[in-house]
Amino acid sequence: MFKKLFLLTVAALMTATVVYAQDVFSSQRERWARIAAESMPRLDTTEVFPVSVVEAVADTAAFQGWRYEAVPGLDTLSEANFRSMRTITLDFGRHVTGYLHFSLKTLGDVMDCPVRLKFTCGEVPAELNVPFDPWKGSLSRAWMQDETFTTHTADRDLCLPRRMAFRYLKVELLGGNFDFALDSLRCLATTSAGEIKTALNADCPQIIKDINRVSLATLAECMQTVYEDGPKRDRRLWIGDLYLEALAGRYSFQNHLLTKRCLYLFASLTDDNGRLLADLYEKPEPHPQWGTYCFTYSLLYASVLLEYLNDTGDIDTARDLWPVVEVQIADAISRVRDDGTLNGSRAWLFFDHAVMDTEVPFQGAVLFALSQSCELAERIGYADRVQSWRKLMPKIRKGARKRYYDSRSHLMLSAGDSPASVHAQVWAVIGGILSPKEGRLAIEAALARPDAVQMGSPYAMHYLLEAMIRCGMWQQARDTMVDYWGGMVARGADTFWEVYEPGNDLRSPYSFHPLNSYCHAWSCTPTYFIYKYPEVFQK
Amino acid sequence: MFKKLFLLTVAALMTATVVYAQDVFSSQRERWARIAAESMPRLDTTEVFPVSVVEAVADTAAFQGWRYEAVPGLDTLSEANFRSMRTITLDFGRHVTGYLHFSLKTLGDVMDCPVRLKFTCGEVPAELNVPFDPWKGSLSRAWMQDETFTTHTADRDLCLPRRMAFRYLKVELLGGNFDFALDSLRCLATTSAGEIKTALNADCPQIIKDINRVSLATLAECMQTVYEDGPKRDRRLWIGDLYLEALAGRYSFQNHLLTKRCLYLFASLTDDNGRLLADLYEKPEPHPQWGTYCFTYSLLYASVLLEYLNDTGDIDTARDLWPVVEVQIADAISRVRDDGTLNGSRAWLFFDHAVMDTEVPFQGAVLFALSQSCELAERIGYADRVQSWRKLMPKIRKGARKRYYDSRSHLMLSAGDSPASVHAQVWAVIGGILSPKEGRLAIEAALARPDAVQMGSPYAMHYLLEAMIRCGMWQQARDTMVDYWGGMVARGADTFWEVYEPGNDLRSPYSFHPLNSYCHAWSCTPTYFIYKYPEVFQK
Repeated sequence: MFKKLFLLTVAALMTATVVYAQDVFSSQRERWARIAAESMPRLDTTEVFPVSVVEAVADTAAFQGWRYEAVPGLDTLSEANFRSMRTITLDFGRHVTGYLHFSLKTLGDVMDCPVRLKFTCGEVPAELNVPFDPWKGSLSRAWMQDETFTTHTADRDLCLPRRMAFRYLKVELLGGNFDFALDSLRCLATTSAGEIKTALNADCPQIIKDINRVSLATLAECMQTVYEDGPKRDRRLWIGDLYLEALAGRYSFQNHLLTKRCLYLFASLTDDNGRLLADLYEKPEPHPQWGTYCFTYSLLYASVLLEYLNDTGDIDTARDLWPVVEVQIADAISRVRDDGTLNGSRAWLFFDHAVMDTEVPFQGAVLFALSQSCELAERIGYADRVQSWRKLMPKIRKGARKRYYDSRSHLMLSAGDSPASVHAQVWAVIGGILSPKEGRLAIEAALARPDAVQMGSPYAMHYLLEAMIRCGMWQQARDTMVDYWGGMVARGADTFWEVYEPGNDLRSPYSFHPLNSYCHAWSCTPTYFIYKYPEVFQK
Repeated sequence: MFKKLFLLTVAALMTATVVYAQDVFSSQRERWARIAAESMPRLDTTEVFPVSVVEAVADTAAFQGWRYEAVPGLDTLSEANFRSMRTITLDFGRHVTGYLHFSLKTLGDVMDCPVRLKFTCGEVPAELNVPFDPWKGSLSRAWMQDETFTTHTADRDLCLPRRMAFRYLKVELLGGNFDFALDSLRCLATTSAGEIKTALNADCPQIIKDINRVSLATLAECMQTVYEDGPKRDRRLWIGDLYLEALAGRYSFQNHLLTKRCLYLFASLTDDNGRLLADLYEKPEPHPQWGTYCFTYSLLYASVLLEYLNDTGDIDTARDLWPVVEVQIADAISRVRDDGTLNGSRAWLFFDHAVMDTEVPFQGAVLFALSQSCELAERIGYADRVQSWRKLMPKIRKGARKRYYDSRSHLMLSAGDSPASVHAQVWAVIGGILSPKEGRLAIEAALARPDAVQMGSPYAMHYLLEAMIRCGMWQQARDTMVDYWGGMVARGADTFWEVYEPGNDLRSPYSFHPLNSYCHAWSCTPTYFIYKYPEVFQK
């Protein structure tokens, strides 16, 4: 997820009607935390060695203006005198997340002084070729993966203490007046993903194979002891990313234990009113970002739990965590106005990096959550608890249509500064406000309309695909996937990016493109669609 | 010791006559290494906290132009927002050798980004106030104690992986956009010195108390798992430093196990011909600096063993290591010319940082070694083995007097570029070439003579004191100690320095004074003289 948080929600939600008394889950939290801990996945470690020495080439045709060319030198690296070489860049051939290990092999003489090395890791070439300082990024300079390391010990396995996420590594000698070689340089790469349990059809087109491969690499790299949003940045668990990762995992790694762990972590870290926080951190002890409520994410919790139940049949877990769903829905219901629409004011409603009115998408998001929660309740024998929710849905749909649907333009429009957006149509479809036929017209109209806000992130693009599929826009969905994710593949992506704007390689929400995450979970869902709809995507 | 090594000795000694066959100690080396390992001392760890926040003041009257002034802030440090403070310098009140520990205490919000900190440690104020880059030192830049550290974890004990030696610490924030305090900042300081077993006379003058205190601090900081030369630089064991540290330890920490370990380490790492290497390293496995023979250091091995025997009565060890002494002496004897003098050509003969003719001092160094070895042999019942050595000594003395003693000037003079030096007189006294009366005249003449090379390091000054005492120059010895070591105390020394030239604070053999070691074992011997001759130094 991203970092400029709109913490408007605290005050709003503090006053929202809640169905439970103070600290509703006090009797559950400890047990939930224990289940989360017991569901810790095994981290597999693989030794990944560089595949080539490379040299940077400035090339306006390359992604962000830089590419690497392989040059000789890898075979002789462990014998070459790094004292005279002084700098080298290595390509590991794939994105890796893990710990850099190496040793300094003394050549001839002993190590009679410490060695000071600078390591710079990059997911994409630009990270090693654009100066970081003076710093102009809007997030912490510390996110950049450059580390200075001093050692007094050669001929022994050494390790950078910081976990890195990268494909390219630059090593520079800053000090050390004796002859040595860089030896056994490798990454102990970690993931909890496990084996891929599925395979594409043999005659699947190459571009789809490529998109699927990059999707799975992205997902596997983000699967650590939680589903991280990005192993370089932010390295944490968000509900929104969790949902998409759980979907993508269904047809590949099927590590449902990790999903269970994440569901329980969020449940154990709800606030006193039982509300979910948007993201959480594992160390030193699991803790959320207190005060950071993202209502659209809280609403997705029910969907994660439903998908988990569908994947595992684990009714016990679904029942155990049902009360968490109930609290989030109750919060939403407290926002229903007399006319049936929902009041989304003073809440952080995240749908995209793009700036837009969130009013209409919010209607759809709540309806989707209601629908998913009702389905979940029925699956676990709690249908009687959601009867009032079932009844509420038509009222909201009707109210939203009346207030926002403009039959002349075929669009859902809001009253704000940017009344038209693709997002509004997408979420109206997902929420069942528009019929498939209406949705198709609406999506096509919004996509064609110059003043409509367009999708601004892979996260938003996932929901566009979902909505297109719901409207039977099969060819458009396929074209969108090939254009957008295939565009990243064509630009050299090993893993899918946090940010991708076709035609604008340097786009960054953080004022500095090397600060973007280039392996970002919310980009990994093509594999979900490819496997779920093989007749569309694998043909 | 110092680092510009003159590796002339290899070829010379390869051709020297040796009394043993190839790899003389092959049957002993493993056992000796095991005894060295078994003699590993316990490292005591003490938590040392800063005593004050300080601010640098440029002051031409201060040592090297910088001093620190205490300012408020220590009491509130663990609650103060370092995000706004951005930089702080702390005084630990004493020299410490060990590992920096700290935590980042989140203030209010969570740690939602990594933190990048720069730590710079200094033994003296100039190390924190003179820019390191662009680097102009003649040794590795990596010796400087500045480290950049990135962490993703707050509220947990963190540790810099590199051992530091310092009194002053500067911390700078390079990245991290959230509110946090520096908490629990401390050094886990290590030493194997143990308790001081002795006390000065109650009426001992303050300056002597101060010199003794600083001597002992220096020694204790250098006592780790070997006697290091300096805990900042070079962090290794040299025979020359070992000898002086063993002497200084006799009247204070009396950690004779550490001396035993060092004696066995050197023995286990002799070359195939049984010759000692000048220095050694402990990690990853004990190993010497192959090819680095310092003949004057090899000769001192006998003295270390003799002092160890005198301190412990451990005849078994002395007998076990006797063959090592025998090889070094045999090497020396192979250099005796027909006229009785010794040929020191093509050998590295270290006496001082000062540049000078080493010919005359070498005569004295060999005679001293012969004399000490004979004494050692007699103590362990091996008198019959050294009869030829006993007979050789008068021949060398006579030859040296004839060739080098100038009775008109009362000086031992050589034929080189700088015929006169204080060192020549000092070593002629220690080697018994000059009588005490002659020695006194010689030393006084050399000290007074403008064209004579003067002592250029605390290491050389030790032998000047020793020679003065042998000549009965009690008052001069005391004045020399108070002037020289007392001069360092007056300049603010917490520990005695590797390099001290009165009137020239910026003197450095490495072209950059912050690169000097400011806690250096070879400066620590005043305590030896103070305790050995209380009637002179404690009055």
